[in-house]
Amino acid sequence: MHNRHTVLALALLGGTAMTAASDEGMWLLNDAPKRHLKDKYQFDLSDEWLRRAMLGSVRLNSGGSGGFVSAEGLLVTNHHVAADSLQKLSKPGEDLLRDGFYAETRDKEPKCPDLEINVLQEIVDVTKEVNGAVKPEMKPAEAFAARRAVMGRIEKESLDKTGLRSDVVTLYNGGLYHLYRYKKYTDVRLVFAPERQIASFGGDVDNFEYPRMNLDVAFFRAYENDQPARTPQFFKWSETGPAGGDLVFVTGHPGTTNRLETLAKLKHRRDVTLPYTLARLRTLEAALIQYSEQSGEKRRQAATDLHSVANARKAFGGQYQGLLDPNILAQKKKSERALLFAAAETVARARTAEGPGSGHLLATHDDALNALEAIEATQAKLRTFEREYNLIEMGHAFYSPLFGIARHCVRMHEELPKSSPERLREYRDSNLDSLKFQLFSPAPLYPELERAKLAASLTLLAEQLGGEHELVKLVLAGKNPAARAEELIAGTKLFDPEERKKLVPPAKGAAPGPDPIASSKDPMIQLAKAIDAEARKLRTRYETEVEEPERQAYAALAAVRFRAYGNSVAPDATFTLRLAFGTVRGYEVGGEKLNFHTTFGEAFEKSARLGGREPFDLPKRWLDGKNKLDPNTPFNFVSTADTIGGNSGSPVLNRAGELIGINFDRNRHGLVRNFVYTDVQARHIAVHSKAVLGALRTLYPAAPLVKELTGK
Amino acid sequence: MHNRHTVLALALLGGTAMTAASDEGMWLLNDAPKRHLKDKYQFDLSDEWLRRAMLGSVRLNSGGSGGFVSAEGLLVTNHHVAADSLQKLSKPGEDLLRDGFYAETRDKEPKCPDLEINVLQEIVDVTKEVNGAVKPEMKPAEAFAARRAVMGRIEKESLDKTGLRSDVVTLYNGGLYHLYRYKKYTDVRLVFAPERQIASFGGDVDNFEYPRMNLDVAFFRAYENDQPARTPQFFKWSETGPAGGDLVFVTGHPGTTNRLETLAKLKHRRDVTLPYTLARLRTLEAALIQYSEQSGEKRRQAATDLHSVANARKAFGGQYQGLLDPNILAQKKKSERALLFAAAETVARARTAEGPGSGHLLATHDDALNALEAIEATQAKLRTFEREYNLIEMGHAFYSPLFGIARHCVRMHEELPKSSPERLREYRDSNLDSLKFQLFSPAPLYPELERAKLAASLTLLAEQLGGEHELVKLVLAGKNPAARAEELIAGTKLFDPEERKKLVPPAKGAAPGPDPIASSKDPMIQLAKAIDAEARKLRTRYETEVEEPERQAYAALAAVRFRAYGNSVAPDATFTLRLAFGTVRGYEVGGEKLNFHTTFGEAFEKSARLGGREPFDLPKRWLDGKNKLDPNTPFNFVSTADTIGGNSGSPVLNRAGELIGINFDRNRHGLVRNFVYTDVQARHIAVHSKAVLGALRTLYPAAPLVKELTGK
Repeated sequence: MHNRHTVLALALLGGTAMTAASDEGMWLLNDAPKRHLKDKYQFDLSDEWLRRAMLGSVRLNSGGSGGFVSAEGLLVTNHHVAADSLQKLSKPGEDLLRDGFYAETRDKEPKCPDLEINVLQEIVDVTKEVNGAVKPEMKPAEAFAARRAVMGRIEKESLDKTGLRSDVVTLYNGGLYHLYRYKKYTDVRLVFAPERQIASFGGDVDNFEYPRMNLDVAFFRAYENDQPARTPQFFKWSETGPAGGDLVFVTGHPGTTNRLETLAKLKHRRDVTLPYTLARLRTLEAALIQYSEQSGEKRRQAATDLHSVANARKAFGGQYQGLLDPNILAQKKKSERALLFAAAETVARARTAEGPGSGHLLATHDDALNALEAIEATQAKLRTFEREYNLIEMGHAFYSPLFGIARHCVRMHEELPKSSPERLREYRDSNLDSLKFQLFSPAPLYPELERAKLAASLTLLAEQLGGEHELVKLVLAGKNPAARAEELIAGTKLFDPEERKKLVPPAKGAAPGPDPIASSKDPMIQLAKAIDAEARKLRTRYETEVEEPERQAYAALAAVRFRAYGNSVAPDATFTLRLAFGTVRGYEVGGEKLNFHTTFGEAFEKSARLGGREPFDLPKRWLDGKNKLDPNTPFNFVSTADTIGGNSGSPVLNRAGELIGINFDRNRHGLVRNFVYTDVQARHIAVHSKAVLGALRTLYPAAPLVKELTGK
Repeated sequence: MHNRHTVLALALLGGTAMTAASDEGMWLLNDAPKRHLKDKYQFDLSDEWLRRAMLGSVRLNSGGSGGFVSAEGLLVTNHHVAADSLQKLSKPGEDLLRDGFYAETRDKEPKCPDLEINVLQEIVDVTKEVNGAVKPEMKPAEAFAARRAVMGRIEKESLDKTGLRSDVVTLYNGGLYHLYRYKKYTDVRLVFAPERQIASFGGDVDNFEYPRMNLDVAFFRAYENDQPARTPQFFKWSETGPAGGDLVFVTGHPGTTNRLETLAKLKHRRDVTLPYTLARLRTLEAALIQYSEQSGEKRRQAATDLHSVANARKAFGGQYQGLLDPNILAQKKKSERALLFAAAETVARARTAEGPGSGHLLATHDDALNALEAIEATQAKLRTFEREYNLIEMGHAFYSPLFGIARHCVRMHEELPKSSPERLREYRDSNLDSLKFQLFSPAPLYPELERAKLAASLTLLAEQLGGEHELVKLVLAGKNPAARAEELIAGTKLFDPEERKKLVPPAKGAAPGPDPIASSKDPMIQLAKAIDAEARKLRTRYETEVEEPERQAYAALAAVRFRAYGNSVAPDATFTLRLAFGTVRGYEVGGEKLNFHTTFGEAFEKSARLGGREPFDLPKRWLDGKNKLDPNTPFNFVSTADTIGGNSGSPVLNRAGELIGINFDRNRHGLVRNFVYTDVQARHIAVHSKAVLGALRTLYPAAPLVKELTGK
């Protein structure tokens, strides 16, 4: 499909340094870049290789990736992905997140309260079926409902047929629809985690920086029927790890990219969404920091919330700087023009080939222009209610899981009586077990922390909408945010999972009792009820005025793109399984050459240089064991493979499909990867497979774990 | 003047709990509440007492208050007021702010690089002269210019006549104009400061909280002609301090209150100004925290900036919660109605007394209504450009002293050739020496810190106005905020005071050379030049569309208020000398009774209870000397006296005019004092005079200082 023009267009489409030889792309496993790998790397990407990558890779519902590393359900991910579970397994005086954990024997592996992992089993293209349900004459609301219904039906049928969790995934913002079938594990137990000091050595300061020296790994084990799961398709742990220049693969679940978004959408992000997002994150971060400073125990309680907010603030901050860089938007503008040109060229070629009668192709150039205009018009509409939508329906005004729990209780009573395809997506049958698994989680919640978080987000609500706004008055109910948060947290019983169970509709077949929601005096339930009509209105507006028109427009652009470039552009990330590839390679910053890997020795050197002060302090175990460690052991390494948030914990594989590293971050030059890929300085960062073995063998009493990984 | 109705009206005007017996008010020293003190406290406030209070009180240009405590220029203030100077006297490896300082002999007292103190000598009422210059037929711009001109002329004449710094102060938002004449000291040297750990024990966590155990004091000495200044009117240091129930006075410089502002103005603050302010402070605080975490040295560099931003965030956060409390706005609404009622009543009484012909008084009720409407209309205008005004003219987009320096250099060339009364207020003759003292300060500035601060505030600029805004494009000049900050800081030479001197206009009489601004290649100067026309436009808009109409309207309201209530309502705070009074008294929170003072022993107990973790760690000197201290020594105490930010460091005096404490904070119930005064729970907090002596005598090798304070 490629020709000189489309190569140029692709170069512009991708960013500053993309060429035909670029390593850009988070590829679908059923549409992998086999030819490119063959051409550039002389590597034959076999279906068998791809199948193991699929069955060996896992997605964690806490928002990251991982991979099986033994036939007995053992899986590796990042410490910072495991943090949510480590926190929930901790209690006052017993801080697994800070101090680490190791279960020497299987009977000592504790079950995580609400960790679910998904393993992709199969992908089915359902684009025709989904698109077939939406007729051109339908109004947006009808089209949206029709699309939701057909997706719900496909998922339900798949669930009934296979018993597997079944999600229809929207790709290319609406260009393709694929059905993903997952095997689901809800009995996941903790095996090993190191101390936080070494897992995130350098803390927020070094987050998104390189060189790094982090042992950002943790091990879980999946169970089925109270026995370790059988996982024959696992990644063999490499004793050697990668060398400079090696071709490597990253298999994981990148969360979100925006590379195929139009200029108008990106400007909307720059001028509306991101300033709001940053204001929100700073509000939450300030509240969490202030809470944490009050005592060591409060610091422990707030640790994972604070980490995730700080991490998001840094990631979105980098995106924002990227969108304010005129070069990046200029490139985007060029790529849009190139797409139009390519569309016109396709038409011209078709005309030449087929003669002037080929009117069906003539539409492509106009389609693209119309789609661009439609997306621009959509942003103007979105601007008028985006904050309300985010605050009320997305729940940003209610930064506490207790509100989310209350809302689910309220909505389940409205949604579950409907047929599955007619429900709001989160209540469809194929998602219901996962939802209840979360809803009834026994993970501890701390009233003072939840009050501080809720007060901060209710304050954000007032700041964003103003004291006279009807929604603000409705939510605050005659109090100021601090007093309202106090009242809600002091009054709610939703801390107790048993109370939650009383509030959801009875299981099918059970005798219907009196409606527990109608009679509930719980102030959090009453709040969720009081705002539900307004919240649903905002959701409907978003679906019909934004989501559906955008989806149709992006589908049109995707069609143009497919015709012009074929499948040479990967879809934007959607927290579904993708394959990226790249080369292990250092880079230069300000004249300084950074090696492709760091070493154990560098961690000790940096800590000493900065006086051992937090966040550059090392665990006692490491300080005591320093002389036993080989300082030259590779610790972290970088490659050009294309990753984004959600790839945390992704297995990094070599040609043989062995695990040579665990991805955990990207450097600051990679912060603009949401919009453009470059391989000049942008890198992902991974823990070296040798570092894990070196630390486990030398510092931790973890011989059984090493034996399970290596057979030795 | 009082009668039953006006007492009622006053009660409503003041807040929840004001009565005729209330201790509300930050009173003018030339209009002190003598009768109230006599009636309620049987205290004769003599002119002699007031004169010593005036001559013994000092204002620090770093934004706080203090008082002379010896005849040889020794003055006490808060550690947190001294922090700016402590920081500027520190350098890498020598951290006076953290570690404290004591000069045993006078030759060891180091000069603060840019600390100026002012001591009020005289107050002259110039209301008639100022108002006489503004004719009713003038348009706002003319009225503003006329007012500025007459104020400038009064100040200039006073300066020429007395040699004293002369400022015309606007009171009651325009109801009165007083000329304040100050003696000025620019040679101020550091004598003593304790360690920050004990000065602000509890840090941000306990800021605005009580019980407190803080040794928040520092001592400076004023010099004249290289000799200690002679200050015969000083406050004698009390060896006993206050007892519960004592009448006490606070003499200091409260910064800003908004109690006489109208409901429309307060709603504007709630819905426009404060959300912006909080967003700004969080942006700066996040940047400073992230900078501080990078190393111990960076933490040292950013310490005072971080403290002042965190303090402001907490203060404004409290104000914001206050304005979202429907009770507070409801009270404000009532007080506005009460004022209208009182105005009507005045008219009615005048009619009864003078007959129906007394038309000149009939205007008052209409005047008040018109003024309220005018202020409301003004807010609608302000809303359209307040952010631009704050960011560009107030300099919020440029959070670095280097920009302020650049702007002064640029503007001095434009302003100084004009006659003094015609200049922008900050360039009038009576302020010029103080301005240059700041401008040429040799205080150290750290490039990496200034870059981080500037990047944060330029990001704020873009977030607030959007990437397409002309002012954003003008400021960022084709870069993103981070890159633009880097370019400006890397290129500017303004770190060096000698470079600054080359850029200001030559002194009068010196030969005029080529214009250094026109030819300057300094990027910070170029930025200040590039935006100056736009910045001045915003300033003019603010002056003519907001400041002048508000001033006229508030003057009309003040006239109504004077007629109705006489001088029984104090003017809002203006960072000029005021006298407050109150009773030393504990209070109750949630059923718990808090004593009116804390003790040394409680500091040790709290630190131990919280594991000695920062910010609840104690200095080694205190831990080592614990057994030598009497644990029952009073440490901090509270009273009902009416204070606000700017009162930090204010002397607290007893009936005899002796210093019994140093005010340093108010509790969280006092955070709404900007809008309402209550004495139910709201308290100011002061360091007990006995605590200072106890610590100095027992823990610090400071016998000469103790002798100077006590004669022993």
